[in-house]
Amino acid sequence: MTYCVGLKLNAGFVLLSDTRTNAGLDNIATYRKMFLFQEPGERVVAIMTAGSLSVTQTTLARLDEAVNDDMADETTSVMKAPTMLQVASIIGHTLSNTRREIVGQMRDFNQQASASMIVAGQRKGGDMRMFLIYPEGNFIEATDDTPYLQIGEHKYGKPILDRVVTPATSLADAQKAVLLSMDSTLRSNLSVGMPLDLTIIEKDACTVTAQRRILEGDPDFMEMSAAWSAALRESFVKVTI
Amino acid sequence: MTYCVGLKLNAGFVLLSDTRTNAGLDNIATYRKMFLFQEPGERVVAIMTAGSLSVTQTTLARLDEAVNDDMADETTSVMKAPTMLQVASIIGHTLSNTRREIVGQMRDFNQQASASMIVAGQRKGGDMRMFLIYPEGNFIEATDDTPYLQIGEHKYGKPILDRVVTPATSLADAQKAVLLSMDSTLRSNLSVGMPLDLTIIEKDACTVTAQRRILEGDPDFMEMSAAWSAALRESFVKVTI
Repeated sequence: MTYCVGLKLNAGFVLLSDTRTNAGLDNIATYRKMFLFQEPGERVVAIMTAGSLSVTQTTLARLDEAVNDDMADETTSVMKAPTMLQVASIIGHTLSNTRREIVGQMRDFNQQASASMIVAGQRKGGDMRMFLIYPEGNFIEATDDTPYLQIGEHKYGKPILDRVVTPATSLADAQKAVLLSMDSTLRSNLSVGMPLDLTIIEKDACTVTAQRRILEGDPDFMEMSAAWSAALRESFVKVTI
Repeated sequence: MTYCVGLKLNAGFVLLSDTRTNAGLDNIATYRKMFLFQEPGERVVAIMTAGSLSVTQTTLARLDEAVNDDMADETTSVMKAPTMLQVASIIGHTLSNTRREIVGQMRDFNQQASASMIVAGQRKGGDMRMFLIYPEGNFIEATDDTPYLQIGEHKYGKPILDRVVTPATSLADAQKAVLLSMDSTLRSNLSVGMPLDLTIIEKDACTVTAQRRILEGDPDFMEMSAAWSAALRESFVKVTI
């Protein structure tokens, strides 16, 4: 499993992903699920992935190949597509084609492979846009009504987002919200695990503003987690029925 | 969907169930999912249900028929079985047989039907015991390490239980915990709905101590829910990263 969450706020994007990949409970590994393409000041595209590692890695490798291919044009390179909508469309097509190929290869074993992605980005002069791309290649977009998108194990971490996140939320508060959302998920689902990758992209910067890997045992994260537990228990005592 | 939660504490049982039943999003109805068998002072057995209504209703009707059948013996009546383990076993068999019959009837339509149950009870002189009964009829039991069991949509309401419930939790606090657990679930899953059925069974009473139906718009529940939201937001402001 996986947990990735992206917030699209008036002030920018806040993106957080875990790194746990597993094939069964007895085969656990760490793989990055946050990928960045950028030409600072011109365009930034962040992609977070969930699902079969063979599908997500191959999809990302193909996207990367197209970006680095001088022959690639605006229909294949996410760094050349004229709009973010077309970026989402390129990623959707690549994902859906890759998935179809891999499922075809596995047909004899009667196995499935699937993956989904969150894509957040902005090009110079364009709007910030964030999409959730389904395994079939179609997608939905974050809006002011629901300014966040989640992939993977989304349930444990959803209540805190519903309660505190609006488009007006500051980047600092948003960072806290996604980390608490992740904290609830880490506690309840063993197949989501540290380290975490956090990326902040300020509005109109068209480049990554801050990027941080939070390791197992990170003192700030542990302190926040303990303070949140204590605050919840305190709140529990105060509330009456 | 459904959400039912049962706590087995040193002081007694606290059980809470919703009442929403749906066949698709366009066909929603209210059905009780909390059922009680008791001979006050001698034995109390509470059952909460999740899953296909035809399976749970038929299972309950058969258990009820056996309890009211003078010819029923300790192998078929949950009120005559010598131990709570055997009560769980009778319910497991009835559930699994009923499910198998109904799935057989639906074979032509290639449809599935399934159900699970939480059974909590005590007989005079025996221990309090609580079981989660799977569709196949096998079961697991609540222990001091994990003093609660959930069926249905369990994820949204689990973090609060993990944080505040231990076997030493008082019945009053436990009641608050299950209501807050339900509150989180109601907010996030439309297929879980009011009214709620709450049942308290004190240790060694061998009878229902308190029973309450909480209706949509119940002022106490609404106030608790609003206070909890406010307390969470306040906690969020206090926690730093």
